[in-house]
Amino acid sequence: MLQAMHHVLVETKGNGLTEITSEVNRWLAKQKVETGLLTLYCRHTSASLLVQENADPDVREDLLTFFERIAPEGKGLYVHDTEGLDDMPAHIRAALTQVQLSIPVEAHHLVLGTWQGIYVFEHRAAPHRRDIVLHLIGE
Amino acid sequence: MLQAMHHVLVETKGNGLTEITSEVNRWLAKQKVETGLLTLYCRHTSASLLVQENADPDVREDLLTFFERIAPEGKGLYVHDTEGLDDMPAHIRAALTQVQLSIPVEAHHLVLGTWQGIYVFEHRAAPHRRDIVLHLIGE
Amino acid sequence: MLQAMHHVLVETKGNGLTEITSEVNRWLAKQKVETGLLTLYCRHTSASLLVQENADPDVREDLLTFFERIAPEGKGLYVHDTEGLDDMPAHIRAALTQVQLSIPVEAHHLVLGTWQGIYVFEHRAAPHRRDIVLHLIGE
Repeated sequence: MLQAMHHVLVETKGNGLTEITSEVNRWLAKQKVETGLLTLYCRHTSASLLVQENADPDVREDLLTFFERIAPEGKGLYVHDTEGLDDMPAHIRAALTQVQLSIPVEAHHLVLGTWQGIYVFEHRAAPHRRDIVLHLIGE
Repeated sequence: MLQAMHHVLVETKGNGLTEITSEVNRWLAKQKVETGLLTLYCRHTSASLLVQENADPDVREDLLTFFERIAPEGKGLYVHDTEGLDDMPAHIRAALTQVQLSIPVEAHHLVLGTWQGIYVFEHRAAPHRRDIVLHLIGE
Repeated sequence: MLQAMHHVLVETKGNGLTEITSEVNRWLAKQKVETGLLTLYCRHTSASLLVQENADPDVREDLLTFFERIAPEGKGLYVHDTEGLDDMPAHIRAALTQVQLSIPVEAHHLVLGTWQGIYVFEHRAAPHRRDIVLHLIGE
């Protein structure tokens, strides 16, 4: 049984979804694991990971609109506002999605569905560099 | 250390929760792993996985009602509507739950709590066949 | 490759976040795994796991307020009310967060971000003892 770890530094463009499927696949292709489990872990509390449709970009726009509606930004809405009005909604939106994702590896490929892409979901307004840890176990 | 993989094809009945605990347990019972980790992965973006109470069916009804309220279906509510009015709410509801679930295995059994069942949460209105990948590692 | 399992019994104080990072780290420090994957699993359907900011306690207060607003407690709001008015909102809030969390281990430490803490999120009004299973694999 083998293990491998890797850090992917993702430059986000501010609030929105940045696809990292290709970058993850490129790293996986270099590993010697045919069957196993790949775990992605986001080391932040105002960004998260999401598997979503990679076809119609309107899906990502509607997702953003939904999260803006459900956890809106606004003065007086939250107690915690010292890090900016976009910070507390970011924590809530991260809590509603997830910081970790594990995907089985079969025949040297992630078992992602045809329409599934892996995204870093940036919840802050400004661009950030996000540290995503990849852990692979298998053989 | 051993690994095993399996695909469970789940026929859903349209929007709602389909329990798969027994099917997962039957497969696990045939494996030689006493201690380990079982990962379930849903290869779709409009269905998801959920651990929920397996006792009172009213809990599942209330869950459906909640997700219908929070991410409603309706003309003009979303930009993405080419795949049907139920498609975008389905993506949102999948994002709010998860496509992956890992459960430790102890003494050859999942460590599910007494009242916990594993469900496929179908978010589309029509029945679908959903491909759930099981990955087991342990010994 | 090694494996280890452990049960952490967490006494919650009723609805709110109880940090368990130190307890998890103490157990991990005794294991012989330098590189690996730690999985936490919550054996309940009205409590869940959450990685959140461990700095400003206002963040936790705002999170509670958010979940109270989105899945409120109230007579007549849900079909399922036989276990108390706080039970069904608890199931919904657990569904919106997660019962499982996997965190890579690097250089004998969890790869938690600087501001990340691991919390048990108690969704019931009264204090409960929650059984959290830890599973570690690595070497």
